[in-house]
Amino acid sequence: VLGLGLIGGSLARAAQHAGRQVWGATPSEATAAAARADGFDADTDPGHALARAAEADALVVLAMPLPAVPAALARIAAAAPGCRLTDVVSVKGPVRDAVRAHAPAARFVGGHPMAGTAASGWAAGSAILFAGTNWVVTLGDRADGATDREVWDDVAELAWDCGARVVPAEATEHDAAVARISHLPHLVAAVLAAVAAGDPNAVFAEPGAGALALALAAGSFADGTRVADTRPELVLAMCEGNRSALLAALDDTLGRLGAARGSLASTGALAATVNAGHQARLRWHEARAAEGVRVPRTVSTQELRALGAAGRSLLGWAD
Amino acid sequence: VLGLGLIGGSLARAAQHAGRQVWGATPSEATAAAARADGFDADTDPGHALARAAEADALVVLAMPLPAVPAALARIAAAAPGCRLTDVVSVKGPVRDAVRAHAPAARFVGGHPMAGTAASGWAAGSAILFAGTNWVVTLGDRADGATDREVWDDVAELAWDCGARVVPAEATEHDAAVARISHLPHLVAAVLAAVAAGDPNAVFAEPGAGALALALAAGSFADGTRVADTRPELVLAMCEGNRSALLAALDDTLGRLGAARGSLASTGALAATVNAGHQARLRWHEARAAEGVRVPRTVSTQELRALGAAGRSLLGWAD
Repeated sequence: VLGLGLIGGSLARAAQHAGRQVWGATPSEATAAAARADGFDADTDPGHALARAAEADALVVLAMPLPAVPAALARIAAAAPGCRLTDVVSVKGPVRDAVRAHAPAARFVGGHPMAGTAASGWAAGSAILFAGTNWVVTLGDRADGATDREVWDDVAELAWDCGARVVPAEATEHDAAVARISHLPHLVAAVLAAVAAGDPNAVFAEPGAGALALALAAGSFADGTRVADTRPELVLAMCEGNRSALLAALDDTLGRLGAARGSLASTGALAATVNAGHQARLRWHEARAAEGVRVPRTVSTQELRALGAAGRSLLGWAD
Repeated sequence: VLGLGLIGGSLARAAQHAGRQVWGATPSEATAAAARADGFDADTDPGHALARAAEADALVVLAMPLPAVPAALARIAAAAPGCRLTDVVSVKGPVRDAVRAHAPAARFVGGHPMAGTAASGWAAGSAILFAGTNWVVTLGDRADGATDREVWDDVAELAWDCGARVVPAEATEHDAAVARISHLPHLVAAVLAAVAAGDPNAVFAEPGAGALALALAAGSFADGTRVADTRPELVLAMCEGNRSALLAALDDTLGRLGAARGSLASTGALAATVNAGHQARLRWHEARAAEGVRVPRTVSTQELRALGAAGRSLLGWAD
């Protein structure tokens, strides 16, 4: 495990708890000492950790923010060029592209454990952080679009050992989906909050925005803007890092909101918008209630792709 | 109290609990019987209730949905034309206009107790429904824009007796503010949900929308779309009933979201949008923490207007 922050540290704990042999590296001497004090095999030399991984044919996990990935990949190309490799970054296309550019011989399968990231650091980690959450494991990461199924199975088993459900998806599909269900809601929350608060320096009047609105704001405003409490640098890293997918989601939002505006201005009716949203939310409740499935080890990559596209999550092997 | 549903029934309970003499009318024989069984003076004859109000110079409360208001006003014009009058409808301009049209002699001051309305009916009511909530009491309801301060004080005291805080605002200001903090969030929640779920019959592809997105959706999506669970007919009644104010809020939203889209497409930067939203949310947290104030009975209408515009809520008389 390269990187022992919240996600890397939680993964190390969960995997070791599941009986796996885990070792890790972190650039921080303090973090390495804290991890060792908690009974983990950690140092500050990624080259050493990677040499051990190459010798053991171990699965290497990149557990760092996207900007730190290329330098880590350069180390992998030098110390463990053909290693089994996964990551936990929240966008998947850019990581896949970076692997192709910087460590093309690595046997890479991307991953995204969709667990909370409000806190950070080794101390905030927990062996149960991933329990019951979805962990996307990507298909088609090779330059020719193929999937290294041996490593895919490795990563899926790691996710299951951590208590997560596995959702198979291509990197591009993952990024397009999370743009709609995570990055867009963060951006819309920011806009909703600003529309209520108004801009004290606005040249044109914003009727109704300001102190009175903020004093009256409760239920629907409170929920709809909650994630605007998140530290802006985290929101920016997420949203700006998934630019093209977020643009498509924003265009769809502008289109639907513009249609609602047009309908309200012309006939006064909002039923199409409101009913579509209510139906969508019902579909989400149904999706949440769906049971996970177990699949045979012989499941084809094509079948995995179909399961993910249908929104099914995998609980483990059936055999 | 004309109308003994959730709001009217809760108001009757709270006012009677505060020691006021309360009587009410409802078109439903079953509701009247239920209210009587709970110890309230209720019947099904609004003419009788209004004649008693005229004789006692009592404050009449319209506690019914907006579409039922004009018929009630016609009864008032016949049975108690000069009565003290308020209402609890969630939009204030249309009620004020209806009073001017149908019961111009009534001494009207509008009200909006901002308490939850998920449940409905007499049985769902509670004497503590309004405890700690904001109750907007409107200024400038006379045809000449003046405020009947004797009735305004009456309505404020009723709200305080019900445990609420009073926020003074003109009807137009109220409607503009709630468009931004309630009606817009409901509409945006519907759009967000639909953007994630996609349209199974869409002619053009919506990359990332559908089953995979719904399966991965959690935190930010769950909060941002929560109010899309509300029954569509309630959302439509609120939003369509506040058309012009909601159009202005929608235009502001489209403008800010379009600016974010343009910035992301050109420079890739979303800092202006995300930071403005974060600052707005901080302003809201500060507004929530603000203490209510007590004002002398001699407070001027102009001073009340300034207090409301500053987002201050009134806890009662200082003397």
